[in-house]
Amino acid sequence: MALDVGKIEVGSQRGSLLSILSPGKRTRLRRLLYEFGPGNGTLLFLPIDQGIEHGPRDFFPNPASKDPEYQFRLAAEAGYSAIACGYGMASKYYPDYAGQVPLLLKLNSKTDIPPDDEALSPCNASVEDAVRLGADAVGYTLYVGSPKQEEDFIQLGKVRADCDRFGMPLVIWAYPRGREIEKKGGRESLFAIDYAARVAMEMGADVVKLNMPKLNPDKDKNAPAPYNEMEVTLEEAIRHCVESAGRSLVVLSGGSKVDDDKLLEQTRLIMEAGGSGVIFGRNVWQREWGQALGIIEQIKETLLKSHTRIP
Amino acid sequence: MALDVGKIEVGSQRGSLLSILSPGKRTRLRRLLYEFGPGNGTLLFLPIDQGIEHGPRDFFPNPASKDPEYQFRLAAEAGYSAIACGYGMASKYYPDYAGQVPLLLKLNSKTDIPPDDEALSPCNASVEDAVRLGADAVGYTLYVGSPKQEEDFIQLGKVRADCDRFGMPLVIWAYPRGREIEKKGGRESLFAIDYAARVAMEMGADVVKLNMPKLNPDKDKNAPAPYNEMEVTLEEAIRHCVESAGRSLVVLSGGSKVDDDKLLEQTRLIMEAGGSGVIFGRNVWQREWGQALGIIEQIKETLLKSHTRIP
Amino acid sequence: MALDVGKIEVGSQRGSLLSILSPGKRTRLRRLLYEFGPGNGTLLFLPIDQGIEHGPRDFFPNPASKDPEYQFRLAAEAGYSAIACGYGMASKYYPDYAGQVPLLLKLNSKTDIPPDDEALSPCNASVEDAVRLGADAVGYTLYVGSPKQEEDFIQLGKVRADCDRFGMPLVIWAYPRGREIEKKGGRESLFAIDYAARVAMEMGADVVKLNMPKLNPDKDKNAPAPYNEMEVTLEEAIRHCVESAGRSLVVLSGGSKVDDDKLLEQTRLIMEAGGSGVIFGRNVWQREWGQALGIIEQIKETLLKSHTRIP
Amino acid sequence: MALDVGKIEVGSQRGSLLSILSPGKRTRLRRLLYEFGPGNGTLLFLPIDQGIEHGPRDFFPNPASKDPEYQFRLAAEAGYSAIACGYGMASKYYPDYAGQVPLLLKLNSKTDIPPDDEALSPCNASVEDAVRLGADAVGYTLYVGSPKQEEDFIQLGKVRADCDRFGMPLVIWAYPRGREIEKKGGRESLFAIDYAARVAMEMGADVVKLNMPKLNPDKDKNAPAPYNEMEVTLEEAIRHCVESAGRSLVVLSGGSKVDDDKLLEQTRLIMEAGGSGVIFGRNVWQREWGQALGIIEQIKETLLKSHTRIP
Amino acid sequence: MALDVGKIEVGSQRGSLLSILSPGKRTRLRRLLYEFGPGNGTLLFLPIDQGIEHGPRDFFPNPASKDPEYQFRLAAEAGYSAIACGYGMASKYYPDYAGQVPLLLKLNSKTDIPPDDEALSPCNASVEDAVRLGADAVGYTLYVGSPKQEEDFIQLGKVRADCDRFGMPLVIWAYPRGREIEKKGGRESLFAIDYAARVAMEMGADVVKLNMPKLNPDKDKNAPAPYNEMEVTLEEAIRHCVESAGRSLVVLSGGSKVDDDKLLEQTRLIMEAGGSGVIFGRNVWQREWGQALGIIEQIKETLLKSHTRIP
Repeated sequence: MALDVGKIEVGSQRGSLLSILSPGKRTRLRRLLYEFGPGNGTLLFLPIDQGIEHGPRDFFPNPASKDPEYQFRLAAEAGYSAIACGYGMASKYYPDYAGQVPLLLKLNSKTDIPPDDEALSPCNASVEDAVRLGADAVGYTLYVGSPKQEEDFIQLGKVRADCDRFGMPLVIWAYPRGREIEKKGGRESLFAIDYAARVAMEMGADVVKLNMPKLNPDKDKNAPAPYNEMEVTLEEAIRHCVESAGRSLVVLSGGSKVDDDKLLEQTRLIMEAGGSGVIFGRNVWQREWGQALGIIEQIKETLLKSHTRIP
Repeated sequence: MALDVGKIEVGSQRGSLLSILSPGKRTRLRRLLYEFGPGNGTLLFLPIDQGIEHGPRDFFPNPASKDPEYQFRLAAEAGYSAIACGYGMASKYYPDYAGQVPLLLKLNSKTDIPPDDEALSPCNASVEDAVRLGADAVGYTLYVGSPKQEEDFIQLGKVRADCDRFGMPLVIWAYPRGREIEKKGGRESLFAIDYAARVAMEMGADVVKLNMPKLNPDKDKNAPAPYNEMEVTLEEAIRHCVESAGRSLVVLSGGSKVDDDKLLEQTRLIMEAGGSGVIFGRNVWQREWGQALGIIEQIKETLLKSHTRIP
Repeated sequence: MALDVGKIEVGSQRGSLLSILSPGKRTRLRRLLYEFGPGNGTLLFLPIDQGIEHGPRDFFPNPASKDPEYQFRLAAEAGYSAIACGYGMASKYYPDYAGQVPLLLKLNSKTDIPPDDEALSPCNASVEDAVRLGADAVGYTLYVGSPKQEEDFIQLGKVRADCDRFGMPLVIWAYPRGREIEKKGGRESLFAIDYAARVAMEMGADVVKLNMPKLNPDKDKNAPAPYNEMEVTLEEAIRHCVESAGRSLVVLSGGSKVDDDKLLEQTRLIMEAGGSGVIFGRNVWQREWGQALGIIEQIKETLLKSHTRIP
Repeated sequence: MALDVGKIEVGSQRGSLLSILSPGKRTRLRRLLYEFGPGNGTLLFLPIDQGIEHGPRDFFPNPASKDPEYQFRLAAEAGYSAIACGYGMASKYYPDYAGQVPLLLKLNSKTDIPPDDEALSPCNASVEDAVRLGADAVGYTLYVGSPKQEEDFIQLGKVRADCDRFGMPLVIWAYPRGREIEKKGGRESLFAIDYAARVAMEMGADVVKLNMPKLNPDKDKNAPAPYNEMEVTLEEAIRHCVESAGRSLVVLSGGSKVDDDKLLEQTRLIMEAGGSGVIFGRNVWQREWGQALGIIEQIKETLLKSHTRIP
Repeated sequence: MALDVGKIEVGSQRGSLLSILSPGKRTRLRRLLYEFGPGNGTLLFLPIDQGIEHGPRDFFPNPASKDPEYQFRLAAEAGYSAIACGYGMASKYYPDYAGQVPLLLKLNSKTDIPPDDEALSPCNASVEDAVRLGADAVGYTLYVGSPKQEEDFIQLGKVRADCDRFGMPLVIWAYPRGREIEKKGGRESLFAIDYAARVAMEMGADVVKLNMPKLNPDKDKNAPAPYNEMEVTLEEAIRHCVESAGRSLVVLSGGSKVDDDKLLEQTRLIMEAGGSGVIFGRNVWQREWGQALGIIEQIKETLLKSHTRIP
């Protein structure tokens, strides 16, 4: 246990997560890291909660994607680590794919119709639901910095406790959000995402889902010191965020559709920074079947080629 | 299970709901779909919650309708799939009709006296109440887009969990509502109803109750893209909404009284779009007894003639 | 079961309540209707919750009434169906009268010091308390139309469920209240009271306590159609309200002190309209002992002479 | 049981409280009334919750009083009926005095830093805590008239129910408070205190703690009729309040330090009006040890000389 | 038990805490006071909750400190009484140090992104979590004076009750906070900190964590009397605060980094005033490893040299 004090290195140097997990969490998380998906300790998640988070409009670029069959079949046939969705879809579509692809049950969700000045994502399902459905992990969206953090932390605390009770891995969608974060550089700033990564870890995440920070000197001026004057490259920025998540694994979130090179480049960056995988939704299933399979193959290769961390 | 990827077809092509339901839900829902009502996998519900939702004024066009006996007897004698009402009426009037027509117990309700900018329908009854009363389904009104979606989703999540616990089918009245939806095209827009259909499915509905969308280019401009520029026929619009409900069954809601041709035309439209039935209240019981029986007969015929989906 | 469809008649024509009640509710309600009070299926309640609802000032016209002994002794000696009061008084004064007069335990109450724009009456006692005290019914004040209807309906829903669990009759004080009802004709309008009666029934009341509607063309203009243009006599108005309560029994509430002729006239009206009794407080106990006994005797006669409904 | 109807007399004429209490409450309350303190059915409480209610500044006039030892030793050595304090002090200081003086555990408290427009005192301890600590009563501060009466009544209702469950006497600090009472004559008016006394009784108090009303014609004009025009002496005013508490025992609260004659005069007044004792804090322990013992002796004499009520 | 009435002395004169604690609390607290850390009845805590309270920016002065390994190893190797952190870090990093240094589990936390006008720190972990992790104490941040004190006191009351149930020592971070305290001299004033110390004790703290008060005549004018006119030295001020905590032990909190002399001087002051130790975070781990060990050694010496209280 020779800690190199004074110089913390990223990636495999961070302590092992699996080694300190309870048997239930370890069993389930290993399944995602090694038995399904690209393997070798990486994570590839397919999220399908956009129908509730944004509405059916996200399915218009690829009408086939409106039928959840599309994503479930894709996750199973293309070999994902897990499909991430809410209770309604899990109960209606997972039965046909049970055991063919692990399930990551998303416990909370909201529509984007009301403004998100005071964002909070209410739970509509429980860890016990996840156990009953045979899920291998649960997901929780935490809006870091929201004026409703009190309800959020209390709600998450209960989910976290249930995860410990049932040995269920906890994946936290760590999203800076709300009117206060907008005053301090915005939800995409390094300040915001770095903070979110740390909060997720301190709240008990086993896996943290982060967005790629965006460097924007103009907006970053409003962030607290020293972020307001930091000069970092994107590589350094993402490293900061991954380090802040400590022993928790990190997966990179996608967002709206970008071009393939950028997607693969971001995948490489997160993995080299010590991340454990990616969770891309629209970037994958807004493509026609063959094209979707194609990009998935490329993502998998990148994951396997670039990973630096032993979970 | 040959999924025609790239082209999702509506109606019977959507996956079977009954096949993935738990035994309790399947038993009860089959009773509504095949043993009572028009049969053949269709649903015909008689709702009688207008006395609380709008007040007694809805009974004035047909004074006989003020006595709930009227609706209960109508539901039983005209052969409905179920009568939908709240606890007070179920406990006071259903005993005389127990077993003669299935009961769909509505769990939440509100008056229309306060404004509905922040609509929320509070539960006054439980799934356990429904079990005790011998009901075959429960109903829940979800106000999609309301600023109170947090309370709504949490409340619905508990109802949904109890439905799973007791094997009780869950019917969601999916109503866009609240000040924010009014800013984005309004509660009757395709955007709003399409979103509501999807949310209901993702929250775990077995059956989704929808209003017919109204195309209104003037108001639709305010909806998010691409709804703000979509050019669709009413047939296409309703198909969109039915598809968004996925494997959940869809029933069309009526609203205030319209002329018979329009009523039957809408019935046909929903069934051809893959819907499973209708739930008309005022359009039926605001008529004198004989006339009510008459229109019910016509609705039944339309249901049986136009249904395209195998549940 | 020959329902005269198309013409609903009031009074005894409404379906029997007792016949569909559970054994516990039937046992207790029969006691109030037949074994105590005027009997013959009528109800005469003595309410003593004014000390909390309005403060001690209501006792000043008759200082003796400040000591709850006065009301308890009056209820027992004059032969009431039940005395209605909150937990504090029930626990401190009912022991001396236990079994001599039935107890109707009022579960919620509030002071009138804060404004009632958003009225809500919080529960300070439970149905289980009522069972332990030997009560034969519980009372709940529902503020129909209040912006706090969400809390109100949820709270009442729990009380109602406990009533079912313990076989305890539920009496709902159905009071239109709050800033929104004032915009629509006011709390005393036919619109408001008719709506309140229906809501109470739909929320599971066994007995509904109503105020006499007041016809006020000036204010009624603000009520929703068709109330804004209805031309009815007071007799017709009260009939409307009683009908709206359906199978629930109706008792007429008194309010502040009026002259004897008016009091007895109102008693007659409610009974002829199908009501089951009255609940007069200040009109009775703001009189000196002998006078109180006198008016009670006259009320009882009127009840027995005018009742038209078989409960 | 010859009730002198038409003329309610104060003091011993009010019904016996002990006779209708449950065995647990009777046992504990008798201990306070007869076994400890001045005895003969009187109550002398020493309150020490000022450190949380006002902060340490109340201890500055007598620095020794800052150490709770001072009050605990005073209560034990000077022979009090009980010492009234919160959980922190009870758990840290009562062990050394267990059994030497009864404990009245105060369940709720607040600081005076935020304004009290919407006062509410949150519970930080439970009746079960009181049982475990060997307490003989619990105390609850009720802010009568506060816009937060809904939370207050619900919270108190639960405490009251637990008191019944455990046979624990309930002492209610009945304090008019909040922006609405200030508009109606203020917290010290006869209107306010009279109302508070009644509410406490109706909420189930066994003992009510009241402040002495202050007659102030200028402010009383704003009170509701008939208080706005009542002409009463202080003796009559306090009698009104004591009567409003009915069978509940009444103890007079002190407030900030006044001169000795006034203190003893007020003690005499409350006892002659049918009160059962006093609860003076600052007036006692803001004195040096010997002086404190002196005034306590005088208060005890006054209690024993002036008491008129048999509890 | 010869109490020197009239002159309360600080330090060892305050009553023994350990002597009145339950066996579970005594066992655990003794471990912190005598078996780990500097010993001899002193407390030296290493806090690592800044990542959630302020964000990762606190780690920038010493990048190594971003990896929680740094603090855990420091606490274990330098011989701390306990390491204080939240659930996420305790579950991910404590396993490797279990038994090598005691754990003080912090139960509540918040980010500093939203303003703290109405500060409240929500619980994300429970006392039961602490028991399961093998912790020897729990920590709770109480924002004294916040407009949300109602939620705070209720939340703390439940934590406190669980501490009694499990025999777990309770450490209260007693922080004046919120818009109202800013109007009354501010969060660093003697008024504020003195009040906070007392409230923590009255809420059941076994150990109170305080900030050093700052004397600021300009702002103190706004504090309530007599604080607005008090003339005290810093020594006297800190003595006041320590006395206000009564039998609860007091540890001094550090805050942002200050120079070494000041740090050691403050350590001496708190110990001479009757404090039991210090909890310095940034002042310690914002240093490189060797320097951190150096300052810790000096703090320990000061603690052992200056302590005046027997716990």
